[in-house]
Amino acid sequence: MSHPTLTILGFNSALPTTNSHPTAQLLEMAGHTFLIDCGEATQVQIRKTGTKFSKIRHIFISHLHGDHVFGLIGLISSLQLMKTTPSLHIYGPKGIRDFIENQLKHTKSEGNFPIHFVELTSTQNEVIFEDEKIVVETIPLVHRIYTNGYFFKEKQKERSLVMEEIQKYPEIEICDYQNLKNGKDFVLSSGEILPNTLLTKDGPSPKSYAFCSDTRYKPKVCEQILGADLLYHEATFLHELEEKAYATGHSTALQAAMIARDAKVKKLIIGHFSTRYFPHYHRLQEEAQTVFPETCLPELLEKVQF
Amino acid sequence: MSHPTLTILGFNSALPTTNSHPTAQLLEMAGHTFLIDCGEATQVQIRKTGTKFSKIRHIFISHLHGDHVFGLIGLISSLQLMKTTPSLHIYGPKGIRDFIENQLKHTKSEGNFPIHFVELTSTQNEVIFEDEKIVVETIPLVHRIYTNGYFFKEKQKERSLVMEEIQKYPEIEICDYQNLKNGKDFVLSSGEILPNTLLTKDGPSPKSYAFCSDTRYKPKVCEQILGADLLYHEATFLHELEEKAYATGHSTALQAAMIARDAKVKKLIIGHFSTRYFPHYHRLQEEAQTVFPETCLPELLEKVQF
Repeated sequence: MSHPTLTILGFNSALPTTNSHPTAQLLEMAGHTFLIDCGEATQVQIRKTGTKFSKIRHIFISHLHGDHVFGLIGLISSLQLMKTTPSLHIYGPKGIRDFIENQLKHTKSEGNFPIHFVELTSTQNEVIFEDEKIVVETIPLVHRIYTNGYFFKEKQKERSLVMEEIQKYPEIEICDYQNLKNGKDFVLSSGEILPNTLLTKDGPSPKSYAFCSDTRYKPKVCEQILGADLLYHEATFLHELEEKAYATGHSTALQAAMIARDAKVKKLIIGHFSTRYFPHYHRLQEEAQTVFPETCLPELLEKVQF
Repeated sequence: MSHPTLTILGFNSALPTTNSHPTAQLLEMAGHTFLIDCGEATQVQIRKTGTKFSKIRHIFISHLHGDHVFGLIGLISSLQLMKTTPSLHIYGPKGIRDFIENQLKHTKSEGNFPIHFVELTSTQNEVIFEDEKIVVETIPLVHRIYTNGYFFKEKQKERSLVMEEIQKYPEIEICDYQNLKNGKDFVLSSGEILPNTLLTKDGPSPKSYAFCSDTRYKPKVCEQILGADLLYHEATFLHELEEKAYATGHSTALQAAMIARDAKVKKLIIGHFSTRYFPHYHRLQEEAQTVFPETCLPELLEKVQF
């Protein structure tokens, strides 16, 4: 299984400008291409990555503020025109179904594929998607309106074959490999049992990605995302504006770094910066690095492998 | 009064791409900055023109297909964040109020200025805006859903002073000029009457602009827009796809030119091209020019003075 990659399509807050884009991310993980948040004109950003639109089957919306959701109807409309999407699952706060369906109704958009809405209301974390390779949980956040982050966790991957051992036993055929990867021992025709640990070793570590935007500083998040390989956490303000951050339901760069440190994540990307800091976002990075050195600034359209 | 200018913010049909934008135009005319249609990310295009957002007080939406209206909520949301707009008038098909208000409700957008919706239902042309300098009429069109073009007509401008004549009469003071511009004669203290036509000449001609998109070929439009200085008319297809144009409620380049010719307009800009012609839009222009030589292709963000 290849490494997951995250592509930041946009990371600014509120007002779109000629050189920045509101929140949206593409996460390629466990064979899926997940879209996380969808600010205005996200479809144009997706186009720039070269990603086939039809690969997107699951869209996760954190909350219903415009800079996280205004691009959703345009994307859906384009998917309908393209007619290559078999179905779409949209996860987001209660209300998202009416928000989208009312727009589809007024614009007489053709419904040539089903859209399955999963409307969220819980303030406890819950599993909202799961298959054999990955599980996705909500991360309840604290913002001015009901908001969830999302935690994407690969499941334990299958074991890796140790070919130099396997080749010592001609009885083991290619059709047996999947059983070995699944952890089964091998029984020779003599009755001798070859333990799985002889023929395989641990597979690559499962990876995890936590997306936390928008939110007031919420230390409780750390328990849930403990040890995540990658964390994106909003950092709208410098810490000198801590009170403003609190009042508006946002975090400071220092607070984002405290979450990263206390959750023992491997790497932090901060974003959702107030435009007051443009173009000096390094100030936010520098503040965060005083607490968590592995803090990066997002680069538009850069693929971050983890 | 300065010449009106039209800025094309986008002119492609349906799918936004990395190098093209759906329909939107800024019309500066008679002291107003009118926005006509508002496809996704129109606000970013407006930004590129350097136009102050707060100048936009009247928005005219032709119809509720996404490529003409998906950018409206983002623009309104930004105007709310900026807090510099005193009020907004939005003209469009019935349903546009619910379409926008439902989005504002779900996204908890702050209503810090009033939005006056003028919902249209008539299939006859009607005056929808008028002040001392300009009148705006609907142009009923024929499309798959209820659609109007818009006809912007300056009123007769005030008369121009003939200063070499006026200066012969010291009795005429600056405070009399406005009466002269308004067409009044001047009575000297001797009782002699100086006719207005001696002291003034006709002012500059009033200008007019007709916007027609999207529409099937509709010759009846010509009567209404007769002699317009500038016509924008959709030309989605080449005439070899006339049947497809008819079936989808669109026009061919030839048909757009026939409207321009029969309406005796001074200049035609065609647009809303099917992506199948990208980047060879000159083919549409060439077809139109066989009937109406003064046919131009739109240039993104170019200011067309007329």
